[in-house]
Amino acid sequence: MTFWDLEKLPLEEFRPGIMSRAEMGDNLIMVCMKIDPDKEDRGHHHPYDQCGIILEGQIELFVEKEKRVLNPNDAYFIPAGEHHGWKTFEGPVRLLDISLKQT
Amino acid sequence: MTFWDLEKLPLEEFRPGIMSRAEMGDNLIMVCMKIDPDKEDRGHHHPYDQCGIILEGQIELFVEKEKRVLNPNDAYFIPAGEHHGWKTFEGPVRLLDISLKQT
Repeated sequence: MTFWDLEKLPLEEFRPGIMSRAEMGDNLIMVCMKIDPDKEDRGHHHPYDQCGIILEGQIELFVEKEKRVLNPNDAYFIPAGEHHGWKTFEGPVRLLDISLKQT
Repeated sequence: MTFWDLEKLPLEEFRPGIMSRAEMGDNLIMVCMKIDPDKEDRGHHHPYDQCGIILEGQIELFVEKEKRVLNPNDAYFIPAGEHHGWKTFEGPVRLLDISLKQT
Protein backbone atom coordinates (compact mmCIF):
# COMPACT_ATOMS: atom_id res chain seq x y z
CA MET A 1 0.00 0.00 0.00
CA THR A 2 1.04 3.59 -0.55
CA PHE A 3 0.37 6.42 1.91
CA TRP A 4 1.14 10.01 1.04
CA ASP A 5 1.16 12.99 3.38
CA LEU A 6 0.26 15.44 0.64
CA GLU A 7 1.63 18.44 2.51
CA LYS A 8 5.13 16.95 2.66
CA LEU A 9 5.25 14.73 -0.42
CA PRO A 10 8.41 15.32 -2.48
CA LEU A 11 7.63 15.90 -6.16
CA GLU A 12 9.84 15.67 -9.23
CA GLU A 13 9.84 17.63 -12.45
CA PHE A 14 7.35 16.12 -14.86
CA ARG A 15 7.61 18.77 -17.52
CA PRO A 16 8.49 22.48 -17.41
CA GLY A 17 6.28 24.16 -14.81
CA ILE A 18 4.78 20.92 -13.50
CA MET A 19 6.14 18.87 -10.62
CA SER A 20 4.54 15.51 -9.89
CA ARG A 21 4.60 12.19 -8.14
CA ALA A 22 2.65 9.20 -9.41
CA GLU A 23 1.50 5.88 -8.05
CA MET A 24 0.44 3.26 -10.54
CA GLY A 25 -1.48 0.06 -9.93
CA ASP A 26 -3.08 -2.50 -12.19
CA ASN A 27 -5.93 -0.15 -13.14
CA LEU A 28 -5.45 3.33 -11.70
CA ILE A 29 -2.89 6.11 -11.76
CA MET A 30 -2.91 8.52 -8.81
CA VAL A 31 -0.85 11.67 -9.32
CA CYS A 32 -0.05 14.55 -7.00
CA MET A 33 0.81 17.54 -9.16
CA LYS A 34 2.04 21.07 -8.53
CA ILE A 35 1.54 23.47 -11.41
CA ASP A 36 3.27 26.83 -11.71
CA PRO A 37 1.36 30.09 -12.10
CA ASP A 38 0.29 31.15 -15.60
CA LYS A 39 0.38 27.71 -17.18
CA GLU A 40 -2.20 26.38 -19.56
CA ASP A 41 -3.33 23.21 -21.25
CA ARG A 42 -5.43 24.41 -24.17
CA GLY A 43 -7.27 21.12 -24.41
CA HIS A 44 -7.06 17.43 -25.10
CA HIS A 45 -9.18 14.33 -24.67
CA HIS A 46 -8.69 10.66 -23.94
CA PRO A 47 -10.97 7.61 -23.92
CA TYR A 48 -11.06 7.20 -20.13
CA ASP A 49 -12.47 9.05 -17.11
CA GLN A 50 -10.33 11.38 -15.02
CA CYS A 51 -11.11 12.93 -11.65
CA GLY A 52 -9.48 14.62 -8.70
CA ILE A 53 -9.44 17.28 -6.04
CA ILE A 54 -7.80 20.68 -5.74
CA LEU A 55 -5.46 20.86 -2.71
CA GLU A 56 -4.08 24.39 -3.01
CA GLY A 57 -4.55 27.42 -5.25
CA GLN A 58 -7.02 28.21 -7.97
CA ILE A 59 -7.35 26.63 -11.39
CA GLU A 60 -9.74 27.17 -14.26
CA LEU A 61 -10.95 23.90 -15.75
CA PHE A 62 -13.03 23.50 -18.87
CA VAL A 63 -14.77 20.37 -20.07
CA GLU A 64 -16.46 20.66 -23.44
CA LYS A 65 -18.41 23.94 -23.23
CA GLU A 66 -18.42 24.20 -19.42
CA LYS A 67 -15.81 26.30 -17.62
CA ARG A 68 -15.28 26.63 -13.87
CA VAL A 69 -12.77 28.11 -11.45
CA LEU A 70 -11.91 25.47 -8.85
CA ASN A 71 -10.60 26.10 -5.35
CA PRO A 72 -9.24 23.85 -2.58
CA ASN A 73 -11.73 21.15 -1.60
CA ASP A 74 -13.38 21.20 -5.02
CA ALA A 75 -13.54 17.87 -6.82
CA TYR A 76 -13.96 17.30 -10.55
CA PHE A 77 -14.95 14.38 -12.73
CA ILE A 78 -14.15 14.50 -16.44
CA PRO A 79 -16.05 11.84 -18.39
CA ALA A 80 -14.20 9.68 -20.90
CA GLY A 81 -13.82 11.26 -24.30
CA GLU A 82 -14.71 14.83 -23.32
CA HIS A 83 -12.44 17.64 -24.49
CA HIS A 84 -10.89 19.39 -21.47
CA GLY A 85 -8.11 21.72 -20.43
CA TRP A 86 -7.04 24.05 -17.66
CA LYS A 87 -5.34 27.33 -16.82
CA THR A 88 -3.58 28.57 -13.68
CA PHE A 89 -3.51 32.19 -12.55
CA GLU A 90 -1.10 34.17 -10.34
CA GLY A 91 -0.45 31.39 -7.80
CA PRO A 92 0.70 27.79 -7.97
CA VAL A 93 -1.83 24.96 -7.83
CA ARG A 94 -1.56 21.57 -6.18
CA LEU A 95 -4.03 18.81 -6.96
CA LEU A 96 -4.53 15.07 -6.65
CA ASP A 97 -5.63 13.50 -9.92
CA ILE A 98 -6.78 9.97 -10.67
CA SER A 99 -7.25 8.37 -14.05
CA LEU A 100 -7.50 4.96 -15.60
CA LYS A 101 -4.25 3.29 -16.51
CA GLN A 102 -4.41 2.44 -20.15
CA THR A 103 -3.41 -1.10 -20.98
CA MET B 1 -18.59 17.29 -16.19
CA THR B 2 -19.22 17.13 -12.46
CA PHE B 3 -17.90 19.66 -9.94
CA TRP B 4 -18.32 19.13 -6.24
CA ASP B 5 -17.66 21.63 -3.48
CA LEU B 6 -16.78 18.95 -0.93
CA GLU B 7 -17.53 21.17 2.05
CA LYS B 8 -21.15 21.67 0.97
CA LEU B 9 -21.91 18.50 -0.97
CA PRO B 10 -25.19 16.89 0.17
CA LEU B 11 -24.79 13.19 0.93
CA GLU B 12 -27.37 10.42 1.21
CA GLU B 13 -27.50 7.36 3.41
CA PHE B 14 -25.53 4.57 1.78
CA ARG B 15 -25.76 2.13 4.65
CA PRO B 16 -26.13 2.58 8.42
CA GLY B 17 -23.43 4.96 9.62
CA ILE B 18 -22.22 5.87 6.14
CA MET B 19 -23.48 8.77 4.03
CA SER B 20 -22.24 9.09 0.46
CA ARG B 21 -22.52 10.61 -2.96
CA ALA B 22 -21.13 8.92 -6.03
CA GLU B 23 -20.26 9.91 -9.57
CA MET B 24 -19.85 7.14 -12.09
CA GLY B 25 -18.30 7.31 -15.52
CA ASP B 26 -17.32 4.70 -18.08
CA ASN B 27 -14.33 3.55 -16.01
CA LEU B 28 -14.18 5.25 -12.64
CA ILE B 29 -16.37 5.69 -9.58
CA MET B 30 -15.68 8.75 -7.42
CA VAL B 31 -17.36 8.71 -4.03
CA CYS B 32 -17.51 11.30 -1.25
CA MET B 33 -18.24 9.46 1.96
CA LYS B 34 -18.91 10.46 5.57
CA ILE B 35 -18.46 7.69 8.11
CA ASP B 36 -19.79 7.84 11.66
CA PRO B 37 -17.52 7.42 14.70
CA ASP B 38 -16.74 3.88 15.89
CA LYS B 39 -17.46 2.11 12.64
CA GLU B 40 -15.37 -0.66 11.20
CA ASP B 41 -14.87 -2.69 8.05
CA ARG B 42 -12.99 -5.75 9.22
CA GLY B 43 -11.63 -6.45 5.78
CA HIS B 44 -12.40 -7.34 2.19
CA HIS B 45 -10.67 -7.37 -1.16
CA HIS B 46 -11.51 -6.81 -4.81
CA PRO B 47 -9.66 -7.27 -8.08
CA TYR B 48 -9.16 -3.57 -8.81
CA ASP B 49 -7.19 -0.64 -7.37
CA GLN B 50 -8.75 1.85 -4.98
CA CYS B 51 -7.38 5.18 -3.81
CA GLY B 52 -8.41 8.41 -2.16
CA ILE B 53 -7.80 11.22 0.25
CA ILE B 54 -8.94 11.94 3.79
CA LEU B 55 -10.86 15.24 4.01
CA GLU B 56 -11.81 15.36 7.71
CA GLY B 57 -11.22 13.26 10.82
CA GLN B 58 -9.00 10.32 11.52
CA ILE B 59 -9.30 6.77 10.18
CA GLU B 60 -7.22 3.66 10.66
CA LEU B 61 -6.62 1.83 7.40
CA PHE B 62 -4.98 -1.55 6.99
CA VAL B 63 -3.82 -3.16 3.78
CA GLU B 64 -2.52 -6.69 4.15
CA LYS B 65 -0.17 -6.52 7.15
CA GLU B 66 0.33 -2.75 7.08
CA LYS B 67 -1.75 -0.50 9.32
CA ARG B 68 -1.79 3.32 9.42
CA VAL B 69 -3.77 6.12 11.00
CA LEU B 70 -4.65 8.64 8.30
CA ASN B 71 -5.44 12.31 8.80
CA PRO B 72 -6.74 15.08 6.52
CA ASN B 73 -4.53 15.57 3.47
CA ASP B 74 -3.30 11.98 3.60
CA ALA B 75 -3.77 9.97 0.41
CA TYR B 76 -3.89 6.18 0.08
CA PHE B 77 -3.53 3.71 -2.75
CA ILE B 78 -4.75 0.14 -2.24
CA PRO B 79 -3.45 -2.20 -4.95
CA ALA B 80 -5.85 -4.58 -6.68
CA GLY B 81 -6.42 -7.80 -4.79
CA GLU B 82 -4.97 -6.72 -1.44
CA HIS B 83 -6.98 -7.39 1.70
CA HIS B 84 -7.93 -4.11 3.39
CA GLY B 85 -10.26 -2.58 5.95
CA TRP B 86 -10.69 0.45 8.16
CA LYS B 87 -11.84 1.71 11.53
CA THR B 88 -13.04 5.11 12.73
CA PHE B 89 -12.51 6.48 16.24
CA GLU B 90 -14.37 9.09 18.29
CA GLY B 91 -15.06 11.52 15.45
CA PRO B 92 -16.66 11.27 12.01
CA VAL B 93 -14.52 10.92 8.90
CA ARG B 94 -15.02 12.37 5.44
CA LEU B 95 -13.04 11.10 2.48
CA LEU B 96 -12.98 11.11 -1.31
CA ASP B 97 -12.50 7.63 -2.73
CA ILE B 98 -11.91 6.52 -6.30
CA SER B 99 -12.05 3.01 -7.68
CA LEU B 100 -12.42 1.23 -10.95
CA LYS B 101 -15.94 0.65 -12.16
CA GLN B 102 -16.33 -3.05 -12.72
CA THR B 103 -17.91 -3.97 -16.02
